[in-house]
Amino acid sequence: MPLRTQGEKPPFQHLTQQQKELLYEQACQFISDNKKHLLDRLAPLRTRHLTVVLEDIYQPHNASAVLRSCDCFGIQDLHVIQRNNPFNPAPDVAVGASKWVDYYTYPSTPHALQTLKAKGYRIVATLPHHNDQIITDLDISQPTALLFGTELTGLSTEAVNIADAYVKIPMYGFTESFNISVSVALSLFSLTEKIRRHPSLHWQMTHNETLDLKLHWASQIIPHGPEVLRKIAEQCQST
Amino acid sequence: MPLRTQGEKPPFQHLTQQQKELLYEQACQFISDNKKHLLDRLAPLRTRHLTVVLEDIYQPHNASAVLRSCDCFGIQDLHVIQRNNPFNPAPDVAVGASKWVDYYTYPSTPHALQTLKAKGYRIVATLPHHNDQIITDLDISQPTALLFGTELTGLSTEAVNIADAYVKIPMYGFTESFNISVSVALSLFSLTEKIRRHPSLHWQMTHNETLDLKLHWASQIIPHGPEVLRKIAEQCQST
Repeated sequence: MPLRTQGEKPPFQHLTQQQKELLYEQACQFISDNKKHLLDRLAPLRTRHLTVVLEDIYQPHNASAVLRSCDCFGIQDLHVIQRNNPFNPAPDVAVGASKWVDYYTYPSTPHALQTLKAKGYRIVATLPHHNDQIITDLDISQPTALLFGTELTGLSTEAVNIADAYVKIPMYGFTESFNISVSVALSLFSLTEKIRRHPSLHWQMTHNETLDLKLHWASQIIPHGPEVLRKIAEQCQST
Repeated sequence: MPLRTQGEKPPFQHLTQQQKELLYEQACQFISDNKKHLLDRLAPLRTRHLTVVLEDIYQPHNASAVLRSCDCFGIQDLHVIQRNNPFNPAPDVAVGASKWVDYYTYPSTPHALQTLKAKGYRIVATLPHHNDQIITDLDISQPTALLFGTELTGLSTEAVNIADAYVKIPMYGFTESFNISVSVALSLFSLTEKIRRHPSLHWQMTHNETLDLKLHWASQIIPHGPEVLRKIAEQCQST
């Protein structure tokens, strides 16, 4: 169950920022103080500066582990290309992460990657390539979409050709590849630490995006959340 | 099938270094040039400065993923405490890593940890603790054994009490823990990069240890390897 599909506007887009602030405060009456503190603490830590693109992952436990890693590292958006395989996270591994991470699905690789490029993302494929670099050396000043391929055959030629850069994780063993979920976690660990420690990079979401996110999260927690929020929003608009 | 059990001497311990060199050269007649180059390239990259201790991991795919990560990051030794659960790697996930990594089993936590302390290791437990630090800040000048607990309940109180230090991986999400295999990979990635980039740390194995390792690896590759090597060794000794 994707939370939002590509192209869909976030709900409450039509409200002013002040109306959204009011809506959020009123919605928070329906959740515990602890939960509200959690939303207020975590939302400003989320980033869209870095995002993950999966091409045709087919094992549910891998899909779930990637969702979970995105949540753990504060990556808000996950983009999923479903060429042959539907994205189907296993609920026990994802531990509810699909509630907190937004994921977007695409029917084809060019569609996904061109959409992201149009939004200003640099597409970085994770695979050994004659032109690759070690992931820790990657320049992360531009918004970056990290692209991972399917379990058995890796990235499609199409994906490799559209990518702007290539990174690999240094390895010192007989085993020549990491499991996909481990690759994603290692890459996100390395790059999120780098962006968070960067002295001047604006990796955070805007105030308005953060507010939208908190509203979205609140609607996930409150029983019948979307409906409850819609009703409160109507009142906010009429006052 | 553990390759070596705790306390067991490496084979060919009784040979002089010169005899071992000769044995290795002769054994290499039974393997391809490519394989020999691989052994010669990888052995000097292995380390015992950093090691992994698992307490009671019970899921075969986690055990295997840890073995695979140890191989990928060049960690030569894996120590396994089997209090209630036997260590039982799933062959399809380990991708043959159990051939290249040495693992040692122990019946109890104090036995394992005191053995490692006696060998000069500092025991670092990976868990949130009032006295913890971020893993990237860990001082790795002393040989370090990273301790990971079982999937559901984490490390035993015994293990936590014996540990010398505590580290955690920074997290920014609702999900409050990583899967054990992801934790191990993230920790090893962070710390092996740190030791390899260190300007003066002697993280490498000694020449003699490296030679023992290459002999051991060769015996894994050659059909009936141990027997073949024993026969060549007898010739080396008699010349």
